[in-house]
Parts: sequence; C-alpha cells; structure tokens
Amino acid sequence: MSFEIQSLFASKLPDPAPQPFSGFPRYNFVGGHNDATSIPVQALKAAALRVLDAEGASLATYYLTSGPQGHLPLRQFIAKALARNAQMGDGAENILTTSGSLQALDLVNRLLLNEGDTVIAEEASYGGALGRLKRLGVNCRGVRVDQDGIDMQELRSILEDQKARQAPVKYIYTIPTVQNPTGGVMSLERRKTLLQLAAEFDCVIFEDDCYADLLWGAPRPRTIRSLDAAAAQAQGRANRVIYCGSFSKSIAPALRVGYLIADWTVLAQILPLKTDAGTGALEQMVLAEFCREHFDDHIAGMQKMLKRKCDVMVEALNRSFGAAAEFVAPSGGIFIWITLPEEVDTTQLAAAAAGHGIAINPGAEWTVDGAKNRNRLRLCFGHPDEETIRVGVAKLAEICHEIFRVPRYAGNIQQGK
Amino acid sequence: MSFEIQSLFASKLPDPAPQPFSGFPRYNFVGGHNDATSIPVQALKAAALRVLDAEGASLATYYLTSGPQGHLPLRQFIAKALARNAQMGDGAENILTTSGSLQALDLVNRLLLNEGDTVIAEEASYGGALGRLKRLGVNCRGVRVDQDGIDMQELRSILEDQKARQAPVKYIYTIPTVQNPTGGVMSLERRKTLLQLAAEFDCVIFEDDCYADLLWGAPRPRTIRSLDAAAAQAQGRANRVIYCGSFSKSIAPALRVGYLIADWTVLAQILPLKTDAGTGALEQMVLAEFCREHFDDHIAGMQKMLKRKCDVMVEALNRSFGAAAEFVAPSGGIFIWITLPEEVDTTQLAAAAAGHGIAINPGAEWTVDGAKNRNRLRLCFGHPDEETIRVGVAKLAEICHEIFRVPRYAGNIQQGK
Repeated sequence: MSFEIQSLFASKLPDPAPQPFSGFPRYNFVGGHNDATSIPVQALKAAALRVLDAEGASLATYYLTSGPQGHLPLRQFIAKALARNAQMGDGAENILTTSGSLQALDLVNRLLLNEGDTVIAEEASYGGALGRLKRLGVNCRGVRVDQDGIDMQELRSILEDQKARQAPVKYIYTIPTVQNPTGGVMSLERRKTLLQLAAEFDCVIFEDDCYADLLWGAPRPRTIRSLDAAAAQAQGRANRVIYCGSFSKSIAPALRVGYLIADWTVLAQILPLKTDAGTGALEQMVLAEFCREHFDDHIAGMQKMLKRKCDVMVEALNRSFGAAAEFVAPSGGIFIWITLPEEVDTTQLAAAAAGHGIAINPGAEWTVDGAKNRNRLRLCFGHPDEETIRVGVAKLAEICHEIFRVPRYAGNIQQGK
Repeated sequence: MSFEIQSLFASKLPDPAPQPFSGFPRYNFVGGHNDATSIPVQALKAAALRVLDAEGASLATYYLTSGPQGHLPLRQFIAKALARNAQMGDGAENILTTSGSLQALDLVNRLLLNEGDTVIAEEASYGGALGRLKRLGVNCRGVRVDQDGIDMQELRSILEDQKARQAPVKYIYTIPTVQNPTGGVMSLERRKTLLQLAAEFDCVIFEDDCYADLLWGAPRPRTIRSLDAAAAQAQGRANRVIYCGSFSKSIAPALRVGYLIADWTVLAQILPLKTDAGTGALEQMVLAEFCREHFDDHIAGMQKMLKRKCDVMVEALNRSFGAAAEFVAPSGGIFIWITLPEEVDTTQLAAAAAGHGIAINPGAEWTVDGAKNRNRLRLCFGHPDEETIRVGVAKLAEICHEIFRVPRYAGNIQQGK
C-alpha cells in the first residue's frame, strides 16, 4: 500500500531542511558561536558540583521548586546584574527564563501578533527575527539606523503613515546596544525619543539586549525599559517595553537560556504560551551558580578577547579588501557589517564562498529590504581563531575578486605589496 | 497617558496565568514529578564532571558539534536502548532530541494539523495532549480503551465515519505502553490491527511512549513503530508511526529532554519548526554520559520504588474509599485511574481538595468527553512519599465523604473498624 506522509502535512509549512547536518564550515563567519577557548569549563564543573550537591534532588519536580517563571536563583542573579550594569529596576518576579532568546522572540510574537499586523524593525536587523516576522505574515517595515541607533524622524513618519492607513504599529523591535548587525549603540537621547513616540502612537517596544554584555568601548547605557519605569509607575500602567536578554553570547550558545523581562500583565499571558514545561533546569542551576561568582570577571575576559579578534578582523578586511570594504568597527559584540561596491551580490558571493568552506551572512538575509542590501554582508568574529579570521577573509576576498573584480586586486596580491 | 498593553495582544490567546507560582501543594497527586530520593545526584555529578572535561569546550557552538537533531552521543544511546528494550531499528539519524516530550507534541501537531482537522485519541488520555488539541481547534474524537489498549472495532467505525464525512483522520494518538491514565498496555495483536487500520484509512500513528521505561509487571512490548518498519522498508515508504519518548519520567522531569523518532522525510520538515536553536546542551551531555553507564540499573531501581508506592496507593485507596473506588492497579508508571460512584463530581472534589493542600486530576480534564467522566480521577504516586500517600488519600476520602457521602463512611471511621 503506497503512503506519502507528506500528503498529510499541514498547509503553510516552511521549507524542509535540505539534508542532515554535516559539520560546520572551516571558516565560520556566521552565527553567534563563541570561541571554544572562552568556555569556562573548570568553573562550570565546580558550579555543577556545588549546585547538584545543594539542590540536585529538586530535579525531581517540574520547574524545580521555582514554578514556571524559571529557577529563582538565576532570576535573582539576572535582576541584580541588570540593576548594577544597566540601571534596571525589575525584580525576579518580572523575569521569565526562556529556552534561549529565540523562544523569547517566539513568545512575544505569539503574544502580540496576528497575521497582517505591522511591526517596525531596524532596516538592518537580526535575520532570525526578520525571518520569523516573514513566516508569520506580518508587515515588517524597516527604519533607517546609524551608529547612534534608529533615525527618529523616519520612525515618526512610518508611525504616522501606518496610523493614516489605519494599520497602527504593534511593536517596534530594536537591538539598541551593540545593534545586530551594525554594532551601533542607541544614544540616550534617542532612547527617550523612542519612548515618547511609542507612547504617542500607542505601541510596544521590544528591546532585544542580547549583545549588551559584550560592549567594550563605552559604559553600558540604561536600557529603554528602565527609562520607562518611573513614568509607568507614576501613571499606574504597564511598562511599555518588553525586554529580552540571553546567556548565549556571554557564556555559551549551546546552553539554551535566555530571559524575558516584563510586567506581570504580560508574563501572565505569556506563561500559558510557553508550552515546554520549563527551560532546562540543569542549565539554569549551573548558570546561576557560575554567574554568582564569576559573571563579571568572565565578561571582562570575553570583552578583551572579542576586542582583539575584532581588531584582527578589521586588519584582515583592510588588508584583503582595502577601500572596497566600508564598515564602522564595532565597539562591542561579535560581528561587523560591511558594505561592498554596488556590483557585488553577497547572496551570490555566499553561495560561492560556501563551496570553499567559508560561511557569511549576505545582506539580503539581514535586512528588511533585502533587494536594497545585496552588496552588504555580516561577518562574525566570535568563533574563529585569529589565524582562521585572517586566512578566511583573504580567501573571501579572492573569491569576491574572481566573481566581481572586487576588490580590484586579489587579496594575495595586495598583501604582497 | 493611559496605556492598556492588553489592547495590543493578539486574538485567541489562552487564559492568562491566574497568579505567580506559590509553591507545590502538600499532597501532590498530579503531574509527572518524581520522588526526590530517586534523583541519582552522585552519578549525575560524576557524569557532569566527565563530560565537561571531555566536551565542555564544545558548548561554544550552537548544537555542540552535532547539528540541530541534537547531541549525537545521546541520540546513539537512545537508539541502542530502544533496540535492546523495544526492538526498535531506528538509528541516531532518525532521532531528534526535543525540549521535553511536550515540545515533541507541539512539533507533531504543527507538522500535521490545520484548524478543523480530525484526530483520534484514547477516550481517557494525557490532559496536556488533549488540551493542546482543543486549543488548536482540532476535532478530537475519543475511542474506547481498556487494559489491553484501544477497542479496535470502535476505532474502525470512527475512521469509517470520518471518511464518510469527508474529514479523514490525520493521526491516531496513542500511549500504548502504560497508558495515561489507565496504566494499560496495548496487546501485540491490537498493535498490529492498529497499523492495518491506519494503513487502510491512510493516517499517521503518533505513539507516545513516555512511560514505557517504567513498566514493571511485564516485558516491554515491541513499539508500534518497530512493527511498521519491515513493511515500510519493503514498500519503500516512510514509517507510518511518529514516536516520542522522554527522560522526564525515567530520570528527572526538570531536565527538559525528550525525543522524536521518525523518518528523515518527517524530521526534515520538523526541523525548521523547532525554532529554539536546539535543546539544552548541558542536559543532553550529562544525560548521555549518565545513561551510558547507569540507565538500566537506575530504571530497575525506579520500577522497584514505583511498584512499592503503587502498592501503598492501592492499599490506601482500599482502606479509605473501600468499594467506592474502582480501579485496576497498573503494572507500571506513576498513576492510577479511578472511577467513583456516579454522584461524585471530581472537578468539584478537586476544587475542595485544593483548599486542603491536596491536588488531583479530575476526570473531566483527562478525557475527550469530560462530561461523561466527571466521576473519575487520576492520582499520581510518583512524587509523594509513602506516608504522604496514606495521609493524603485518607484526607481526600474525608473531603469526598463530606461533599458527596462517598465513601459511605469517612476514611477515618473505616480505618478504625
């Protein structure tokens, strides 16, 4: 009897995975992977021992003993760290730990969006967030962004335009601190203007702060959520900002622990949407125990390492691409956003590079208006070691030269000069 | 400026959480919690040390080094254990680790179901699965079930009826081994008939085997998926059965690790639906390392402990409820399914019991046709210790007596006789 299981699949599914995983590329300039040498293995081991001794038996109950918002000691650490580093006033009761910040994105989308709703995102933004909005059938409008964050004038005009169309904006998605991919940091003034505009046009701000721990070039600015706190309290209303963060970038991406911070009104409605019966408890326990003692030192070390790797990447780009690659070196994070001459199509470049074991994010996948950004690309420097960065960028320049005659001279030749 | 964030929420959301978590009830007869004394803390510690030493640095990359299907050593263990214990032939390549089996349910539903589709479930079944189908707007039909599994004659007539209505059944959801809540085990003969019917009516079987490791009264039967394997191979088609399992019941529920087993055709389409960038890696690593050495011994110990607690529960029920409580003592698992006289409404009983720190699952929440099962209830004995079981059941009988005059004599009085 014949049987085509595909004929029973639901409608409107995303494309299937093309094939099983076959290993990472040699020159891996995509994804939020860390440097293998940065994993604090010894301290994690010690934390695991201590916490299993103290609380191991609590693994017997769903959610340990803390309930569905997540492991209380971890939420307490998050609250304390954010109070200290970003002037956040939220206590553990406003925190929900999630299975990575990706689950946080899914939960916020599920909470707020119906098909056809409108959302505003920075014109260049996290591909995973943009892809989600596309799959949900949401109208996503891009707003100009520079190294100081969103262009507030353009933001106002988009908000006005959507209001005029009677399709008001549901939320504004922003990565204000170490913006992905530009690496910019939204100024305090613009943060305040953003809040005023969100109030005027009655929409939510979704503040994705996943890279903020990795800002090395300046003190970490106040979060947008913290800036709305006093007004919200005075007016007896919910804070307009839903905030998310993660330990993926600061500690280890394979640990799937992120968090959402919002008022109870929001969390109460998100909890029944989080249908996984809690985020991995062992990961939360070990993180809480590790972070209590080591977080600040670990972050300082990460920043130092990333700054060095960023310098190596900048040097490699200058050497191999010369003036053809325009970029602003970021003051934090793990990526550089690069503009190449108009004639370069980075989607095509990515496909060719893949054949040589080089992975890059083409601009079309990291922007709201992909067609307008085909000459841009994102390169991540968090994972590859310094030599891999140098060799990989040189190879990429060669491939780019071969296809597009950009840079004018191939990397090797320039290097020889 | 006033701001009601609720006015921006999406339509069709489930009820919000009523209030933050405030601790577990004293007499906790609900949920798949384990006994705190059953957590193998020392062995988990040793496993954590070994695996962090050997593979800790791999936490630096998403999915460790195994890709989105999950940690390869854990998938290899699952394949080996199921081959040994349940004659499964699937290799690691057919396994996807999930964030608990609940995520597996969500993924299979997302893969197969549109609103309005029809699904068949055992008339008494896992409340979490039934609740999901309800929220999805799926037509869920219950089929009679006894201690040997689904009534195949009734199943055929439902399948025929749905075919006649031109609304063929998408999948049959079954918990064949240690059925939740009846504790029954589907006979081999019925498993084969089930496969024939699914083939005849062209639907998928979703085999939920989350409790099968805890069967103590008989050898573990072959899985339905394994029974379809030879025919599927001979006919060059996908196996009709999507299988899920979990470590929540066998090791610890707070570790959020379950798994789906299916052909690549199915997994390829499920992978892009699993949007959390992987299940917690530390949990998978520690489980893989622990299980390699200790799984069989640990399971044997769990079975012994659960059998003893089941005996205590049965004794307590007989003592406190006498002939008023009808049930078949299960030969595995963590729960007993009880029928009380018609006049008892267990939804009302559950509400009253909650006021005394006693939590039970009323029949209405654990059955497809809730109205017909208001005199049934599920009691879990996996978590409470023996004394708590005794006292809790006696108290429950007193409360039941007070409201419904059932049992005829209150537990204490009977006990004194």
